[in-house]
Amino acid sequence: MSLTVIGSTAIDSIETRSEKRADVLGGSATYASLSASFFSAVNLISVVGEDFPVKYIKIFRKHNINISGLEVKKGRTFRWKARYSPDFSSARTLKTELNVFTGFRPSIPDKLVPAKDLLLANIDPDLQSFIFDRIRPAGITACDTMNLWIKNSRAALLRLMKNIDIFLLNDAEARQISGEKDLSEAAKFIISRGCKAVVIKKGEHGVLLFSGKTRCALPAFLLESIKDPTGAGDSFAGGMIGFLSSRRKLSERVLRRSLAYGTIMASFAVERFSASALAKVSVEKIKQRYESFRELTYF
Amino acid sequence: MSLTVIGSTAIDSIETRSEKRADVLGGSATYASLSASFFSAVNLISVVGEDFPVKYIKIFRKHNINISGLEVKKGRTFRWKARYSPDFSSARTLKTELNVFTGFRPSIPDKLVPAKDLLLANIDPDLQSFIFDRIRPAGITACDTMNLWIKNSRAALLRLMKNIDIFLLNDAEARQISGEKDLSEAAKFIISRGCKAVVIKKGEHGVLLFSGKTRCALPAFLLESIKDPTGAGDSFAGGMIGFLSSRRKLSERVLRRSLAYGTIMASFAVERFSASALAKVSVEKIKQRYESFRELTYF
Repeated sequence: MSLTVIGSTAIDSIETRSEKRADVLGGSATYASLSASFFSAVNLISVVGEDFPVKYIKIFRKHNINISGLEVKKGRTFRWKARYSPDFSSARTLKTELNVFTGFRPSIPDKLVPAKDLLLANIDPDLQSFIFDRIRPAGITACDTMNLWIKNSRAALLRLMKNIDIFLLNDAEARQISGEKDLSEAAKFIISRGCKAVVIKKGEHGVLLFSGKTRCALPAFLLESIKDPTGAGDSFAGGMIGFLSSRRKLSERVLRRSLAYGTIMASFAVERFSASALAKVSVEKIKQRYESFRELTYF
Repeated sequence: MSLTVIGSTAIDSIETRSEKRADVLGGSATYASLSASFFSAVNLISVVGEDFPVKYIKIFRKHNINISGLEVKKGRTFRWKARYSPDFSSARTLKTELNVFTGFRPSIPDKLVPAKDLLLANIDPDLQSFIFDRIRPAGITACDTMNLWIKNSRAALLRLMKNIDIFLLNDAEARQISGEKDLSEAAKFIISRGCKAVVIKKGEHGVLLFSGKTRCALPAFLLESIKDPTGAGDSFAGGMIGFLSSRRKLSERVLRRSLAYGTIMASFAVERFSASALAKVSVEKIKQRYESFRELTYF
């Protein structure tokens, strides 16, 4: 019942069609670990600079996230500045400062090795591989990625795939990494590289799962409005893998339900600005939304 | 248990990334009536020219579609020539010949007035209104449309909406007609014009239904590959309204199931070229695919 999450911890500055927020809590590991914390005991491995506000550390603590693997390094925290298109279909990166992430290789606390389950949230595949080699999880290994790494570190990503049970990426990325136009073909390609399951996240259009003979398609949770799509995919991954990590047996039903929990956590993430959105969630609210999602999707 | 379908009957020439087919069976009323014929007794109201191949008439007959309202006029059948983008996300119209549809106002056989249920498949809203005024259905009135009419005949479409129970359109069209970016807001706008329910078709991304307090979201049926997306929306409308027309009571459950049947008929339509794809379908195949769709979507 413990899940180790590695990825970025960031300070984001975000512009949407209606709002502009500077220096808010972000990062793939932030969204993923907060999201997973509602289901499982989470160990966070990441790095922040000395400027990282202690109020954000308190959010991790409040969610019982083990931050013994969160290094504080001299320098500034990783920063990302972006502007979303009015319909949220694309984000334009205005600035990326790697800062303390430059060449970061974490020293992993002994008691986090080996981990039960491991979620390699979106970050440089070289760092993901480094962590995987050190931690050698006894349970599930899941991995998320993004277009940047597919473009710049494709070989490293393909090597890493052999060790991955559940590979998560979005529809454009699935097409990009496979060179296939049909998502079913893209999934086949990814599975041929050694992954046991592929999860293709389609944002507001839901999610597809391919694993052995299992195919699952779920729509997204229908929201009245979206405030900030940042971290939707990371929250999905955290909710999905957090839920899986809390189960003793990985039946097909459990796998399918994990997609619903991922969907729900993503919906909470985009309803408000920044990763602080997830700090407003409760187990009770997750249960309610799960019921609403059943109601939305039954036929 | 009878549904009157009005719309276009066409001869299409279609280019996709892999194939090119000339003079195949098309038209909104063709797809919709074939699709509906698996669920309900269908009366077709449309027009063809003298060049319309009798082999296509035989397809309607084979599906027990009442074609007493299908006029054969001197001249050529409505023709549409289009090329799809490699990923099927858009169609470029290469040529449209209205031919016998120019100024077409059907003489409706007396026994089709009043109809029980009426599906105004995609066609000029002026013609849709003309038909609605003549037929005055006792049951459901459903209406489908496209971007062209929203652009060129917006006022006529908005007037027509007051008489519509179920309005169907795709996501881009919902945004276009409402001026709203969020689909929930777009649906609110359409309902504010007098429709009881709005169905927003999202192609490969599934469908949304808004009606009173009911919200339903379903993914599309997952296909290995798509051959020709022509008529997907028309087939959806025909399957959905055909199923509704076959039921005595319109419960929420029936409305939700009708979306699943619409989804399934659309999936059959795009698996093969042209409206002839629907001629290969059987009640047995529909039942099987309905079960596969349940399996795809359960969690």
